Amino acid sequence: MFYKYDVIVVGGGHAGCEAAAAAANLGSSVLLITMNMGVIAQMSCNPAMGGVAKGQIVREIDAMGGYSGIIADKTTIQFRMLNRSKGPAMWSPRTQNDRMRFAEEWRLALEQTPNVDFWQDMVSSLLVKEGKVCGVKTSLGVEIESNAVVLTNGTFLNGVIHIGEKKMGGGRTAEKAATGITEQLVGLGFESGRMKTGTPPRVDGRSLDYSKMEEQWGDDDGGKFSYTDTMIPTEKRCCWITYTNPEVHEVLKEGFEKSPMFTGRIKGLGPRYCPSIEDKINRFAERERHQIFVEPEGFNTVEIYVNGFSTSLPEDIQLKALRLIPGFEKVKMFRPGYAIEYDYFPPTQLNLSLETKLINNLFFAGQINGTTGYEEAAAQGFIAGVNAHQKINNKAALILKRSESYIGVLIDDLVTKGTEEPYRMFTSRAEHRLLLRQDNADERLSPIAFELGLINQERIDKVKIKVENSLNIVKYTKEHSANKEIANPILEELGTSTLNQNVKLFALLGRPQITMSNLRRINSDFDTFLKQFDRETIEQAEIKIKYDSYFEKELEIVAKMKKMEDKEIYAEFNYHQLNSLSKEAREKLMKIKPRTLGQASRISGVTPSDISVLMVHISK
Amino acid sequence: MFYKYDVIVVGGGHAGCEAAAAAANLGSSVLLITMNMGVIAQMSCNPAMGGVAKGQIVREIDAMGGYSGIIADKTTIQFRMLNRSKGPAMWSPRTQNDRMRFAEEWRLALEQTPNVDFWQDMVSSLLVKEGKVCGVKTSLGVEIESNAVVLTNGTFLNGVIHIGEKKMGGGRTAEKAATGITEQLVGLGFESGRMKTGTPPRVDGRSLDYSKMEEQWGDDDGGKFSYTDTMIPTEKRCCWITYTNPEVHEVLKEGFEKSPMFTGRIKGLGPRYCPSIEDKINRFAERERHQIFVEPEGFNTVEIYVNGFSTSLPEDIQLKALRLIPGFEKVKMFRPGYAIEYDYFPPTQLNLSLETKLINNLFFAGQINGTTGYEEAAAQGFIAGVNAHQKINNKAALILKRSESYIGVLIDDLVTKGTEEPYRMFTSRAEHRLLLRQDNADERLSPIAFELGLINQERIDKVKIKVENSLNIVKYTKEHSANKEIANPILEELGTSTLNQNVKLFALLGRPQITMSNLRRINSDFDTFLKQFDRETIEQAEIKIKYDSYFEKELEIVAKMKKMEDKEIYAEFNYHQLNSLSKEAREKLMKIKPRTLGQASRISGVTPSDISVLMVHISK
Repeated sequence: MFYKYDVIVVGGGHAGCEAAAAAANLGSSVLLITMNMGVIAQMSCNPAMGGVAKGQIVREIDAMGGYSGIIADKTTIQFRMLNRSKGPAMWSPRTQNDRMRFAEEWRLALEQTPNVDFWQDMVSSLLVKEGKVCGVKTSLGVEIESNAVVLTNGTFLNGVIHIGEKKMGGGRTAEKAATGITEQLVGLGFESGRMKTGTPPRVDGRSLDYSKMEEQWGDDDGGKFSYTDTMIPTEKRCCWITYTNPEVHEVLKEGFEKSPMFTGRIKGLGPRYCPSIEDKINRFAERERHQIFVEPEGFNTVEIYVNGFSTSLPEDIQLKALRLIPGFEKVKMFRPGYAIEYDYFPPTQLNLSLETKLINNLFFAGQINGTTGYEEAAAQGFIAGVNAHQKINNKAALILKRSESYIGVLIDDLVTKGTEEPYRMFTSRAEHRLLLRQDNADERLSPIAFELGLINQERIDKVKIKVENSLNIVKYTKEHSANKEIANPILEELGTSTLNQNVKLFALLGRPQITMSNLRRINSDFDTFLKQFDRETIEQAEIKIKYDSYFEKELEIVAKMKKMEDKEIYAEFNYHQLNSLSKEAREKLMKIKPRTLGQASRISGVTPSDISVLMVHISK
Repeated sequence: MFYKYDVIVVGGGHAGCEAAAAAANLGSSVLLITMNMGVIAQMSCNPAMGGVAKGQIVREIDAMGGYSGIIADKTTIQFRMLNRSKGPAMWSPRTQNDRMRFAEEWRLALEQTPNVDFWQDMVSSLLVKEGKVCGVKTSLGVEIESNAVVLTNGTFLNGVIHIGEKKMGGGRTAEKAATGITEQLVGLGFESGRMKTGTPPRVDGRSLDYSKMEEQWGDDDGGKFSYTDTMIPTEKRCCWITYTNPEVHEVLKEGFEKSPMFTGRIKGLGPRYCPSIEDKINRFAERERHQIFVEPEGFNTVEIYVNGFSTSLPEDIQLKALRLIPGFEKVKMFRPGYAIEYDYFPPTQLNLSLETKLINNLFFAGQINGTTGYEEAAAQGFIAGVNAHQKINNKAALILKRSESYIGVLIDDLVTKGTEEPYRMFTSRAEHRLLLRQDNADERLSPIAFELGLINQERIDKVKIKVENSLNIVKYTKEHSANKEIANPILEELGTSTLNQNVKLFALLGRPQITMSNLRRINSDFDTFLKQFDRETIEQAEIKIKYDSYFEKELEIVAKMKKMEDKEIYAEFNYHQLNSLSKEAREKLMKIKPRTLGQASRISGVTPSDISVLMVHISK
């Protein structure tokens, strides 16, 4: 009954939306099929985008012409650059968002994207011919042909929601689960597994006493995600911080015997780094309190997201425990937190293009690949959308390197190592994180996007000028020196050693105590020179200069790692003695006891940083 | 686990929202329980409020402090006063609305209403003790106590969605059905039945050719629903009109053998006056075309509601037929139309307060009572919310008379006569419709609302001033005459007979050809006098004067009807000969063959107007 499409995207979450937009913007005709057009791009969990490592991913998506950053900007109720006190590699943008507006803006953006059509229905199976996908069949019985299909089913595949001892089918609160696809894929030879995730209760902001909490406002300097000139709302909203305490933990423990997690009713593994509150008090029994972020769900709504309190304990326990948190004494819940179990497909069954190895032209993106997080999902969706288009046009797949993007790290990790628990991005997963900063995602990725046709000439020109300018600044600092007479009093004041002879500005900025602004005081010609550039460009030049020496070291280590790949480790090695290994790595290494560094490096959860630590230790 | 509430409202549609607001505004603590807080006040069908008779209801709700008019105003993309060319009793306000904004504004309005709490869950049963409801139990197993419960379950009770031969459980597209309540109520002695309603496909506005349709813009004079000073958006959107044709009808007929309606799979009766397109071409085989209103779903979305094309034929037939409509040649559907069957409870089981006769403090409102339409639902919700509060405070119920409101007519019809098919309001159902105009709903009902505490002093003062002023104008016209020398040339020009002597302005305005503006030309003192009043006040005075004589006649007929109530009708009377009876009345009377006028008057669908016709005929 319908036209044939180039690409069908199944699912309208972060992955599906980016996939649809990317394929359509490359020129493919796209049909986005979602079970409910009213909840396209629904933020299922926290009303926020970005954060540590995740913010970098949003910037990367934006640098390549994806929409996540733009939508987040348009609907932000608060923006913060996290980790500003640390080195620039750690700076991570994060927004709080208006949940309703976010979904609405995404939908409108897709409606404004030529080549994206919509169909509301549940996909119940794929049409497959001779090892190649050629369309989908829906619960209405409609068959729609296509040259490629991107599956982004989120938590919907055979989703089961747990609250205490209660258990009900559902893909998300108040939404039906999707059935049929897993069974068919398993029949086709795919391996599937179960994963688990959870979400906290939503509460009525009118019932909270904010005077007992710490205010947390956003930045005030116009920071945002997108490199394009998006406008961000002028109105801002405050968040709050409060804490659990031993009384809260005692009440929660009362519910443990009814917990679907602890009683074994939930089989799937949950996200290690986004644990439920019961997980936290169970695993970190020594901790007397846990932080709770009190986040408004939008500009005007009184609904509050209780970040840090994800739980699937019985709803009466949830309420009783919440009421012992300062400021929550009279809290009223809108709905309880819950856990959800769903099907995923171990991502080792994929190529780096996110196409499945078993079925041609079939792509997977998002939670179906065992990840967690909006940003991880959006990134995969974007890549899958691009590669669906590339594949059906016989063009080379877009495969980002680990050394050029977090997205490359994400996909390489998934495909190479697989994951048994919901995979979340961290800066520590990226061995080249010094290069993968939020400030230079455009420099790293916009040229690639331009080559593919994802961004236009005007946009790439802007990036080029920014890069050129920052390199000109670097060049200037290499060619001009600080006069020791002028510099020394300032250096003294900054607590760094004085100069015996004139020194290049470049060298001086390498000192940790010295910033670009200091250099401007030291050399007034430089100060005048810099006035022609904008803040971002100068910031980038500063980073380039400051981190220059680190890059060299980084590359040496990479080379060393390659060489040492097959280095043996003796079986009884006690990883617990190595505190610089992540906790996850120590656990996994102790359990699996790898015989070589190479083997160790392929264990899910053992990061390249962990391998560096091991390598250094073993080399001794 | 929860506080005890005064009133629990089950369901967050138009009925539930008005019920929650009304009870809360009277001072009751209210818990609104909805299966999905994301879709509170979702417009399930057309993105519009009001219309003939329905617009009057919205004005009546507004006059008593309900929210429907305010929300509709805030989110209107187009306002029209229908039937302006007819008498003022027929004038009916109607808005097209932004579907997403409408839901959002309702939710925000409820969030801003003190005393309204929210809980997302499905109510699976009522707690009943000694013939009195005392709370609810939910699917999560939560028991929440209350003094009264208002059920507003819409189409969710055992809802089944039909599209062609496909059939699936659901309360609305993409939403789960609700189970448990019907079975429990039947166990408690209630009679339940099945009804059916339907909705048209939603399509992609980008795929339409508007040049082949007629534009329909809204009014340009700032018209709106609310008597309060709501702001309406300045932006407007155009609607369009197009038509079906014999080719469209032929294609639709191809699907008849798969129609759930015609093959008997749907047992419930559908709304007679909101028929599906297949019903229309089946029942009115002689008509070569049916009007299609092409209505945007909001300010920015491309989604279009195809008003007039409600259908449950197979989706491929829907698309094939749509594409034969001018402007729809390349239409793309977002989702097909469907029919839905659901449980209702014949409303003869209710008191006029909307409390059930069987269970104390249990109230029903909306589609559960066998009605159709947002406005009918909202009105019942409002009354049920008020009366739940009144009941638990041992105060007299709010029972509106047929002679003072459409809402009174609606509830009296439902409770007295019941309904076997979805009940929709019409002006013809109101025997005193001359009195029940959209312009005077405040005069009729605000004093009652003020007595109850639903509106404040400031608001009632405004109404009183408006009424006084309009009566002063009437008085002036009774005390001042038209000078025949000045009047006659103007009367001649207007095509009405000239005066032989000076005549009171009041008498002159009684003539159909003469308007208030004409009078102002005839009498310049009157013109000066009127300048102190606003347009609405003058309009109301005009109506009072023009319709003065009709009111007398109306009352005479009412008295006569009472007297003739037991008058016999002979069994073989052929109602088909009486063309002035409505078609529905003729069908029902022929079927039931009532023996007295009294009996006839109690048949559902036989309106007081029909009885008047019969009475006149029998009296001869």
